[in-house]
Amino acid sequence: MSAQTPAPFARLPEPPYYAVIFSSRRTPGEGGYGAMAERMVELAAQQPGFLGVESVRGADGFGITVSYWRSEENIAAWRRHAEHRVAQEQGRAQWYEHYELRVARVDRAWNGP
Amino acid sequence: MSAQTPAPFARLPEPPYYAVIFSSRRTPGEGGYGAMAERMVELAAQQPGFLGVESVRGADGFGITVSYWRSEENIAAWRRHAEHRVAQEQGRAQWYEHYELRVARVDRAWNGP
Repeated sequence: MSAQTPAPFARLPEPPYYAVIFSSRRTPGEGGYGAMAERMVELAAQQPGFLGVESVRGADGFGITVSYWRSEENIAAWRRHAEHRVAQEQGRAQWYEHYELRVARVDRAWNGP
Repeated sequence: MSAQTPAPFARLPEPPYYAVIFSSRRTPGEGGYGAMAERMVELAAQQPGFLGVESVRGADGFGITVSYWRSEENIAAWRRHAEHRVAQEQGRAQWYEHYELRVARVDRAWNGP
């Protein structure tokens, strides 16, 4: 962790910790996506074990969001969160053409320049 | 792994495998960055243990690139690659205001919708 870490980078503790790597391609159209995405970040930040998130989406609709968590149990609990499950369902039905989810344990981290 | 995985998603084998999560903020100006980035993806894809890469950068200059590898040894070898080291040095000196690098072991993966 560095007090100098600038936004929009996540300020994280020393490893080990866990990452959820979510890559996705949006469908065309807004359909309430922006408000949901903002709400999910706000809600995730209130969950036990949440450490931080980094997110970017390009003009072509492809995006990567990586959220960081203290433990796999914290990730499992967030996945089961009721309001998050509603968003997941709408994501599958409406917002995402395709997505990939990968859960990983971060063992080493450094930064620069 | 899914034969249906559409570009620009990485087509990966079943976990476990390793991820290098590279988030970065670009400096203003091009300065040869695009050609270098393209060359590094081409070169990485030729290295032992390379599995795939997903990458996106937003209009604000913040980007996330996740490359996937068979082993930590493969990642260490790529980090030491001579031409890659030249690019790393120029990245620190010129292209990146800030970056974070995290090496993680992916244990679970799934996709949708």
